[in-house]
Amino acid sequence: MLEELKKKVYEANMLLPKYGLVTFTWGNVSGIDRSTGYFVIKPSGVEYEKLTPDDMVVVDLSCNKIEGKYNPSSDTETHAELYRKWDDIGGVVHTHSTWATSWAQAGRDIPCYGTTHADYFYGPVPCLRCLTKDEIEDAYEKNTGVLITDYFKDKDHIAVQAVLCKNHGPFGWGKDPVDAVHTAVVLEEVAKMATRTEMINPDVDTCPQEVQDKHYYRKHGANAYYGQSSGDK
Amino acid sequence: MLEELKKKVYEANMLLPKYGLVTFTWGNVSGIDRSTGYFVIKPSGVEYEKLTPDDMVVVDLSCNKIEGKYNPSSDTETHAELYRKWDDIGGVVHTHSTWATSWAQAGRDIPCYGTTHADYFYGPVPCLRCLTKDEIEDAYEKNTGVLITDYFKDKDHIAVQAVLCKNHGPFGWGKDPVDAVHTAVVLEEVAKMATRTEMINPDVDTCPQEVQDKHYYRKHGANAYYGQSSGDK
Amino acid sequence: MLEELKKKVYEANMLLPKYGLVTFTWGNVSGIDRSTGYFVIKPSGVEYEKLTPDDMVVVDLSCNKIEGKYNPSSDTETHAELYRKWDDIGGVVHTHSTWATSWAQAGRDIPCYGTTHADYFYGPVPCLRCLTKDEIEDAYEKNTGVLITDYFKDKDHIAVQAVLCKNHGPFGWGKDPVDAVHTAVVLEEVAKMATRTEMINPDVDTCPQEVQDKHYYRKHGANAYYGQSSGDK
Amino acid sequence: MLEELKKKVYEANMLLPKYGLVTFTWGNVSGIDRSTGYFVIKPSGVEYEKLTPDDMVVVDLSCNKIEGKYNPSSDTETHAELYRKWDDIGGVVHTHSTWATSWAQAGRDIPCYGTTHADYFYGPVPCLRCLTKDEIEDAYEKNTGVLITDYFKDKDHIAVQAVLCKNHGPFGWGKDPVDAVHTAVVLEEVAKMATRTEMINPDVDTCPQEVQDKHYYRKHGANAYYGQSSGDK
Repeated sequence: MLEELKKKVYEANMLLPKYGLVTFTWGNVSGIDRSTGYFVIKPSGVEYEKLTPDDMVVVDLSCNKIEGKYNPSSDTETHAELYRKWDDIGGVVHTHSTWATSWAQAGRDIPCYGTTHADYFYGPVPCLRCLTKDEIEDAYEKNTGVLITDYFKDKDHIAVQAVLCKNHGPFGWGKDPVDAVHTAVVLEEVAKMATRTEMINPDVDTCPQEVQDKHYYRKHGANAYYGQSSGDK
Repeated sequence: MLEELKKKVYEANMLLPKYGLVTFTWGNVSGIDRSTGYFVIKPSGVEYEKLTPDDMVVVDLSCNKIEGKYNPSSDTETHAELYRKWDDIGGVVHTHSTWATSWAQAGRDIPCYGTTHADYFYGPVPCLRCLTKDEIEDAYEKNTGVLITDYFKDKDHIAVQAVLCKNHGPFGWGKDPVDAVHTAVVLEEVAKMATRTEMINPDVDTCPQEVQDKHYYRKHGANAYYGQSSGDK
Repeated sequence: MLEELKKKVYEANMLLPKYGLVTFTWGNVSGIDRSTGYFVIKPSGVEYEKLTPDDMVVVDLSCNKIEGKYNPSSDTETHAELYRKWDDIGGVVHTHSTWATSWAQAGRDIPCYGTTHADYFYGPVPCLRCLTKDEIEDAYEKNTGVLITDYFKDKDHIAVQAVLCKNHGPFGWGKDPVDAVHTAVVLEEVAKMATRTEMINPDVDTCPQEVQDKHYYRKHGANAYYGQSSGDK
Repeated sequence: MLEELKKKVYEANMLLPKYGLVTFTWGNVSGIDRSTGYFVIKPSGVEYEKLTPDDMVVVDLSCNKIEGKYNPSSDTETHAELYRKWDDIGGVVHTHSTWATSWAQAGRDIPCYGTTHADYFYGPVPCLRCLTKDEIEDAYEKNTGVLITDYFKDKDHIAVQAVLCKNHGPFGWGKDPVDAVHTAVVLEEVAKMATRTEMINPDVDTCPQEVQDKHYYRKHGANAYYGQSSGDK
């Protein structure tokens, strides 16, 4: 079942090693089929080199396994929570990519220092707090998702399609699995350049708002003119 | 039309991923045919892996599309402004290469710390200011070009063939498209080494003027003796 | 003799250049056959590109050569000491991988800053002291092993499967040669991210203990649920 | 003439891009035939991708071209000076490799922070001063060589087979061209790790002398026991 989605999710997962975002099995991408309410996710702890589309696991939004020979990713509950709360996303990604994870470990939001950032994220990429001991013991992976969706309750999760979970790493999302991975790649690049920017000038200011606005709206929204059709990244 | 130039511009664009200067579609190279006054540029937002020489877009110096199935790069107006003001250049390049962009985000000129820099750039690579809100709203891409050419009004744009646009990234130029990309590669290398030089010695001085002179004039001008003919890089 | 183990040790050694952990001949992996008490190790100073399974050297736990045309690694005595003291390990690895070695040269333990670290190491990766002049003159390589096993006398060498030897580099171990290399790869990644974390936030705190516990025990021990069976990395 | 040496020098030059030590044409390796007193060197400004053994240039110790269709490297006079003064070397290398060049730009000796350094260099790798204006005008490339050989007048140029020329970059040498390149690779690795070591611990001390002695003499001299025969690197 969902053979086409499995293939897409498989291919999106394989982009993670291609773009240097994962070591070993550290990362996972999922994609959802909104008509059935099922989503497809990478199996837990299986090496990318050995992965096939058939190894993808199908689960429902309560994380019951519907199909698949493997256990789904241990982060499946986090993905499910994002899909449950946000019906306008189609893919979720989690990595331990080294620059973004270093910002997560440092416990800092990534400030917007330039147009590379503003082309994709409207404002800083936030670093959320750690879960409490109770939240961890209760349901670690699910509560990671709750923390993320709670943070965006009064914010636009489409204008900033990624967060850092403190002392852990980045989660991202998008309209489909490849789009989510796209965001993870950009986030890593932005995190790398933000670190270097502060090395070069420790007293640096963030990018002026009018420059951020220009670049964000050049690529997003009704008046976008970047690319061949509105919505191009 | 301009089939040979399209091929050259295509090949110059393909050097950007080869040299690690771009992620996704972030970068563009153009080349001009001075006899027709038309220039050829990468289409906006098209992936490098899918690009062919035929996808290149031909525009005139007022940025009217003359030929091509795609929209030209969103930065076309910046390229046009440089071609209009400087009739001695044949190629223009823009990237978000990470080290040069980090200097642009940090808002600092890249000082000349050694002979690698002095072999190519006579003096620091300047970081220009951001555009004002009015300049952005009026004509962002064109005014970026105006800012660059204005800066060089009383300076030699051949002795320093690149600038950093603050909070954005580098623009470079050269006698043809490949030469412009060449400059972009050197700029990235120079930006990387300048960062590391300051890490190793925060109180470092710039390269003595006589050493800069020796290396610049060893490769450029009437008395150059580097390479197999004067003008070799 | 021990043809299968030689092949495994060979393949584990070849993972070192694959993962970018070695330059030239700087690194070695061994594996032990507990039934004979012999272990197999890389020959000293032979290039990885020229290495074959047959080049592996078989030695006993007193480091007498049992089989092989080459001299064993100059670090053989260190490997032997670890095998003698710890009968629950099956492989040992030593590299000069650049990030881990930089921490060793800096003389600092690698703090646990996040879940990537906590997934593999329970607590900081310790940096041991240099050997004294007497210890060096007496038996440098063997005493390096003694220093390591002494340090773990009252600690769990399975919960932290690596150390840094000050001004030298990392040693790691595991249930078999590939598992040991796995640890060396993770250590390098963790060392890289710890450095960057401190660049981004010089006042950073270590990862809360409850987060470390959650991630370590999600992958290790009776209640592990990561991967397809307990014990997956 | 000297066909075998030309092939060796060609192959040694091709190791520079293989090991990531050069961008474009920035680097050169030479090798000498002591029986004729001729040495073979890379031509100036020719791309590595297009280089063939036949393109190598044969010159005598006064830098007169003996054979070759191209001009020799612009640094030929520096190589010649080293060969003239030191009859126990067979190869010379110059690169702008980024970490070593950053130390040269920073104007600092590379301290010995660990055994990776001590395995190859006995003591710090020195950073020599810039040439004076007179020395530059008189004979820049030759005087660079004189500065290097003068520095080693009362020191052992075999115990430390490389220097940094301030605001320029590294020069290295060895018993043959490949051995010289070997040194250039190690120097780059050592320069990288020294930078990171100081990032991780700004108050770091150098490696204790007895550890340096042990590692250097484990690989060099009458009592060496690393590798398959004394003299292995």
